[in-house]
Amino acid sequence: MHEFQIINRYFSKLTINNKNSLDLNDDVFFDKSKKLVVSVDTYVEGIHFVNFKKPDLVIKKIIRSSISDIICKGVKPKYYFIAGSGNKKSFTPSILKKISKSLKQEQNKFNIILCGGDTTYSDKLSFTVTCIGFSQKIIIRNNAKLHDDIYVTGNLGDSFAGLNILKKKIYTNSLLNKYFVNKYYLPDLHLELSKKLLSFANTSIDISDGLITDLEKLINKQKLSYKLNLNNIPISQNLKKLLIQKKLNKLYFISQGDDYQILFTANSAKSRIINKTAKSLGIKISKIGKICSNLQKSKIIDQKGNKIDVKIKGYFHRF
Amino acid sequence: MHEFQIINRYFSKLTINNKNSLDLNDDVFFDKSKKLVVSVDTYVEGIHFVNFKKPDLVIKKIIRSSISDIICKGVKPKYYFIAGSGNKKSFTPSILKKISKSLKQEQNKFNIILCGGDTTYSDKLSFTVTCIGFSQKIIIRNNAKLHDDIYVTGNLGDSFAGLNILKKKIYTNSLLNKYFVNKYYLPDLHLELSKKLLSFANTSIDISDGLITDLEKLINKQKLSYKLNLNNIPISQNLKKLLIQKKLNKLYFISQGDDYQILFTANSAKSRIINKTAKSLGIKISKIGKICSNLQKSKIIDQKGNKIDVKIKGYFHRF
Repeated sequence: MHEFQIINRYFSKLTINNKNSLDLNDDVFFDKSKKLVVSVDTYVEGIHFVNFKKPDLVIKKIIRSSISDIICKGVKPKYYFIAGSGNKKSFTPSILKKISKSLKQEQNKFNIILCGGDTTYSDKLSFTVTCIGFSQKIIIRNNAKLHDDIYVTGNLGDSFAGLNILKKKIYTNSLLNKYFVNKYYLPDLHLELSKKLLSFANTSIDISDGLITDLEKLINKQKLSYKLNLNNIPISQNLKKLLIQKKLNKLYFISQGDDYQILFTANSAKSRIINKTAKSLGIKISKIGKICSNLQKSKIIDQKGNKIDVKIKGYFHRF
Repeated sequence: MHEFQIINRYFSKLTINNKNSLDLNDDVFFDKSKKLVVSVDTYVEGIHFVNFKKPDLVIKKIIRSSISDIICKGVKPKYYFIAGSGNKKSFTPSILKKISKSLKQEQNKFNIILCGGDTTYSDKLSFTVTCIGFSQKIIIRNNAKLHDDIYVTGNLGDSFAGLNILKKKIYTNSLLNKYFVNKYYLPDLHLELSKKLLSFANTSIDISDGLITDLEKLINKQKLSYKLNLNNIPISQNLKKLLIQKKLNKLYFISQGDDYQILFTANSAKSRIINKTAKSLGIKISKIGKICSNLQKSKIIDQKGNKIDVKIKGYFHRF
C-alpha cells in the first residue's frame, strides 16, 4: 500500500469531517478561525537523506524540506519543533554543535524560531519536524481551474543529480559535483514569493516527490488532466550539460523530486502579474503546461509535439 | 550527556530569547498572544513501548502520553498529528485497522481530532506525536513557591508493575496481571481536572519519568528543595498487595515513571478547594510533601520520620 491508500482507508475518517484537516490530503493542516497552519514531516537516514556524514547539511535540508510545505501554501513559517532519534554516534558533542550552528543559520535565513522537540535514543537515525505558520488564507490542493496555466519556480532535477553524485552513480568534475551536491542539500526556497502566491495561484504544492507525481497529487481529487511541454520544464545550464555529456534523460531527472520548487496553477489572465513578480523578486518562474478537461488524458509533449510516455514517476512511500 | 545537557548546551540559545519557548525547559511551547500550546514527543519501540504485539494498546498509550503533557498544564488538547515510521510488518492492513480504531476511541474519550502526520519507511518502529491545544493561560514549570504543598493525582507505580509483568520479570495471578498491564497501557488522564488546575496549582508536570525525577525537573531552575512523606505517596491496593507479596520496594516502584499522573504544588490556603475539587470530580488527589528552602537538602521521610536515601531515580534519555 502506498501512503495515499493508507490515509484514505484508515485515517481520513478520523478527521470527523473537520474541514481544517483538508481530508489529510494536503501538505498542511489549516485552522482558519485560529489562522493556524501546521505541517509534520519525518526524515529517516537511508530514505530521506543518504547518511549523516554531513550533519550540518542534512539538518539544513531537513529544515528546508519542512518549511517548504508551508511556504508553497502562501504562508511564512514562524515556529519549528525538531524531534531527533539516534544513538551516541549520531549525537556526539561535535555533531550537536554542528546541528546547532546549522539551525541557527537557517533560523536567520528564513526567520524561524526553534520552539521545542524531543531527543530519544534509537539505533536508527530519524528526525520529525513540526512547522507552524499563521495566515488568514492558504492555497489548498485540488483547486485548479480548467485551462489554468501550470507554473514551476526555479530549476528541477539538480537535486537528483546531486543525489546520484553522492551515491557514486554519476561522476563528473569537481566543480559540477559541488554545484549539484549543494542543490541536493540546500534547495532554494522562495520565502519572498510565498505571500505573493496568494494573489495569483489557484492551487499549489512543493515538488518533493517529483514533478509528475506532485502534479498528480495536486489535482488528485479533481476531474481534470494536464498537458506539459517537456521543453518548457526548467533545468539549469549545468544539468543541461550533464544530460548531454552522460546521455541522460531529462524527463527522468525532473521526475525524481527533492527539488522543493513550487508548482502552481493560475488563470491565464494572471500571466502578466506572475512575470512581473518573478522579475521584481529575481525568481525564475516558468510556464510549463495547461490544466485540461478530463475528457483528454494527461500528457507530456516533446519539442516536436510528440506525446511521451511517462513510465518513471516519482517517489511514493510504500509499506 | 542527558537530554537536559543537550538542550542547555546546544539548543536553548536557538530560542532567541523567545519567552514562548520557556527556555525549552518545559513540557510544552506556549504562545500567549496566539493562545497556542504545543507538545512534541517521540516514542521508539524497545524504549518507550516494549514491542508492537498489541498495536491497539500501544497506540492508546502513545496518544495518552502525548496529550498528558498538555493536560497537566491546565489546557485541553484539541488537535494531534501522528508521524509513524515502520516497515511492512509494522503496518499491515490488519494492524492499520487496529491503529485507526484505537485512535477513534481515544478521540471520542478525550475530544481530540487527528489533523495530519506522516508515514515513512524505516526498519525501526517509532511514532512522533504533535499535540496542540488553545488556552489563554498555562501552568509553567519552575513556579513553585516556598512552603507550597506538593500534590499528586491518582496512584503511582501500577504502570511499572505492568511493565515488569510484560517483561516477564514479575509473575502474579491473571487478575492482577490484567490490572497492572492495563495501567501500563492505559494511564488514567484527568481531562476534567485540567482547567481547574489553573485556579490552584502554582506549577505542574506530568509524571512520565518517575516521581522524584519529575519533581526535580519541575523546580530545576529554582532555589528550592522538597520534603516528601513516603507514606503519603498514593499507591493502589493491588500494588500494596504486590509489594508485600514480592517483598518489593515502594520508593523504587513509584520512581520509575510512565504514570502520567499530575504532580503540582499549591499554596496551603488552597487545600480546601483542592479537596473539594477532588471530591466533586471523583479524582484522588494526595498531599505528599512540601516545598522547602534550599538551605535544607531535598529529602524523603518514611513512616517513622527517618530520612531515606534516594538512590534510584527515574528515566533520563542519555546519548
